[in-house]
Amino acid sequence: MPHFVTHLEGAIDGARLDPNVAHTLHKDRPIWVRYDLDAVRRAVTPADLQSRPPTLWRYRELLPPKDDASIVSLGEGMTTILRCPRLGQAIGLDNLWIKDESQLPTGSFKSRGQTVAISMCKQFGVKRVAIPTAGNAGGAMAAYAARAGMEAYVFMPADTPVINQFEAALCGAKVFLVDGLINDCGKIVRAGTAAMQWFDISTLKEPYRIEGKKTMGLELAEQSGWTLPDVILYPTGGGTGLVGMWKAFAELRELGWLKSDKLPRMVSVQSDGCAPIVRAFESGSRFANLFPNAKTIASGLRVPVAVGDFIILDAIRESGGTAIAVEDGKITEWMQLACGAEGIAVCPESAACVGAAIKLKESGWIRPDEKVLLFNCGAAQKYPHTLKLDLPRIADPAKVDWDWVSRA
Amino acid sequence: MPHFVTHLEGAIDGARLDPNVAHTLHKDRPIWVRYDLDAVRRAVTPADLQSRPPTLWRYRELLPPKDDASIVSLGEGMTTILRCPRLGQAIGLDNLWIKDESQLPTGSFKSRGQTVAISMCKQFGVKRVAIPTAGNAGGAMAAYAARAGMEAYVFMPADTPVINQFEAALCGAKVFLVDGLINDCGKIVRAGTAAMQWFDISTLKEPYRIEGKKTMGLELAEQSGWTLPDVILYPTGGGTGLVGMWKAFAELRELGWLKSDKLPRMVSVQSDGCAPIVRAFESGSRFANLFPNAKTIASGLRVPVAVGDFIILDAIRESGGTAIAVEDGKITEWMQLACGAEGIAVCPESAACVGAAIKLKESGWIRPDEKVLLFNCGAAQKYPHTLKLDLPRIADPAKVDWDWVSRA
Repeated sequence: MPHFVTHLEGAIDGARLDPNVAHTLHKDRPIWVRYDLDAVRRAVTPADLQSRPPTLWRYRELLPPKDDASIVSLGEGMTTILRCPRLGQAIGLDNLWIKDESQLPTGSFKSRGQTVAISMCKQFGVKRVAIPTAGNAGGAMAAYAARAGMEAYVFMPADTPVINQFEAALCGAKVFLVDGLINDCGKIVRAGTAAMQWFDISTLKEPYRIEGKKTMGLELAEQSGWTLPDVILYPTGGGTGLVGMWKAFAELRELGWLKSDKLPRMVSVQSDGCAPIVRAFESGSRFANLFPNAKTIASGLRVPVAVGDFIILDAIRESGGTAIAVEDGKITEWMQLACGAEGIAVCPESAACVGAAIKLKESGWIRPDEKVLLFNCGAAQKYPHTLKLDLPRIADPAKVDWDWVSRA
Repeated sequence: MPHFVTHLEGAIDGARLDPNVAHTLHKDRPIWVRYDLDAVRRAVTPADLQSRPPTLWRYRELLPPKDDASIVSLGEGMTTILRCPRLGQAIGLDNLWIKDESQLPTGSFKSRGQTVAISMCKQFGVKRVAIPTAGNAGGAMAAYAARAGMEAYVFMPADTPVINQFEAALCGAKVFLVDGLINDCGKIVRAGTAAMQWFDISTLKEPYRIEGKKTMGLELAEQSGWTLPDVILYPTGGGTGLVGMWKAFAELRELGWLKSDKLPRMVSVQSDGCAPIVRAFESGSRFANLFPNAKTIASGLRVPVAVGDFIILDAIRESGGTAIAVEDGKITEWMQLACGAEGIAVCPESAACVGAAIKLKESGWIRPDEKVLLFNCGAAQKYPHTLKLDLPRIADPAKVDWDWVSRA
């Protein structure tokens, strides 16, 4: 298997870095992986991909492990893209699609980043990994670490949904509840690196999670016959997904695999309870300030400060996109709307994108005939606390009042 | 699209039934769907399948809808099969594999049955569906009914895991909690058919869920190069999966697609808290008695009586397989073992299969070198109540005692 990584590159200054050693940040900022795309173009064609297994590792030439023996996989990727006529009709969009990332290991898109990050940890001989998490990333990391036989430490806010606590602990990770937010957890992981000798796989603090998230963009292009939608709505916590997709589109364009050079307008969606990227976008800044008193029902969006702020904002602006904050109090309503209309288990973070689609359609920023794709980043099943259930009860199965049933 | 269903067949008496009308039971027993397999053989080859999308609908010729317009899909199928060296080593099996059904819509294998059953409801013009459920089937049915725009009624025991309640309600189903078990819920659905005019899609009470479950067998054959494992371990509640796979193998053998005529030994796994099939198997009976006081932490196994008992028992016996009950009190231990060893989110029902593999390996019924496949039928994430968490807490992120962390 030939290998196409040429070097790593500091995102803040373009510095060329050695791809053969483990990196975290460069000048406190993220690092890109760069490939010899001319060589990739000679080595593989879109037609070659068709016969490969339906996982994200089909894009092997655009992924960083040096050899296949490093790959730590749970069979992730090639998630379905579903047309949503019923939801589209409800919000006035004729050509609405959802890419359903709930159908991934651990039920969220976080698996994409973790399969690649943990594979690279294996390549570099890492035995112990640590992560701060707002929710799903911790469970995904714990799963891949277990699959690799690595020791895993997970730090999460004390009020992180219990399922995220459970899934990480079930996979044998050492899970700590922290009185604070994800950035406080991030400080713990960083502070412990010396004493604990773990590798820090925080969002965008190592170069490889983004390469895994990039495959969302590769997949959607391949699945759509190497075309792209007009608009992509993406919930933004740490921002790896949006940035990763934008990187994917750039690579695909350079490879010449896309049928058109026109790229989607990227929309970063946040909750009005935690909207640092939206504030920075609106103020014209390249960097975001910490969002004070961050609070949202969409736990994955509770990221008050992102180390990749400038590359998120760069991507949004380059794409002609926008950043939008939606009402936190309406997120469960949009969840019910989307799940009820299409049967897709839309999580709160992605329900925020439904709200954003409604707002952007109403304002005219999205035209009714545009092809709009939104990501369902995780399984709604992981968020049972978001809906207060008061279900009718049948005490005697032999005595059921059918009028009462039909009125329920 | 040509259509290959020739007729339906009563499982109890072989009676030939009309495939063009909706059926529930025949003489209170399940109904098979039969195909013109000679015509299928002429219409499609294994090589043709390779270029089709990775969903269970790639086996279109072996599925019942008359035309594609009836298909109600959430992009289900082609779940990964993972080799499990670490778990295998722990239990003394050199060639152990898990097919991970947690990576399906709604996080369980129930989606397979529901996509086909609801598609057939759409074909027959059904507008309202009802189901009794021990857990995941209700959520899956609600999702596909939402996708189809049908009205859905779900009846579940009052102590069904809250996530199953939530997921069904979130998709807009009318969910009722019943003081009783799944068979009590089944009686309600049956009793309400006249007053409520709903279609009853209880396990094996209509002919099509089994056709969806059949695709587990089709997939595993295709994914293994048209070979099959020596032993399949499968948790048995209603039994559709085991019976469906056995039907798949028979069809594949008749099609001539399998490289060997040797079929797997099918192992039905139940909990000692609810083991009607195991009792019937051990007593040599073709039919099972109601298991009294059914109680198990694996909610999907809490099925005290199965309308398809005889076809489950027939399949086990024809295959040279067995039925085994494992200790309910050890199920969470096996869950932790499997999840910690491989990072696969093994649900309690499938953890019972891990226990069965250990017992059957110890007894010599499974040899260490045999290829053994077990199914992970659902996402462990849907069962957070099965593990009592007592996680360590960090009150001040700025003051962390690393010795304490390393001892955790």
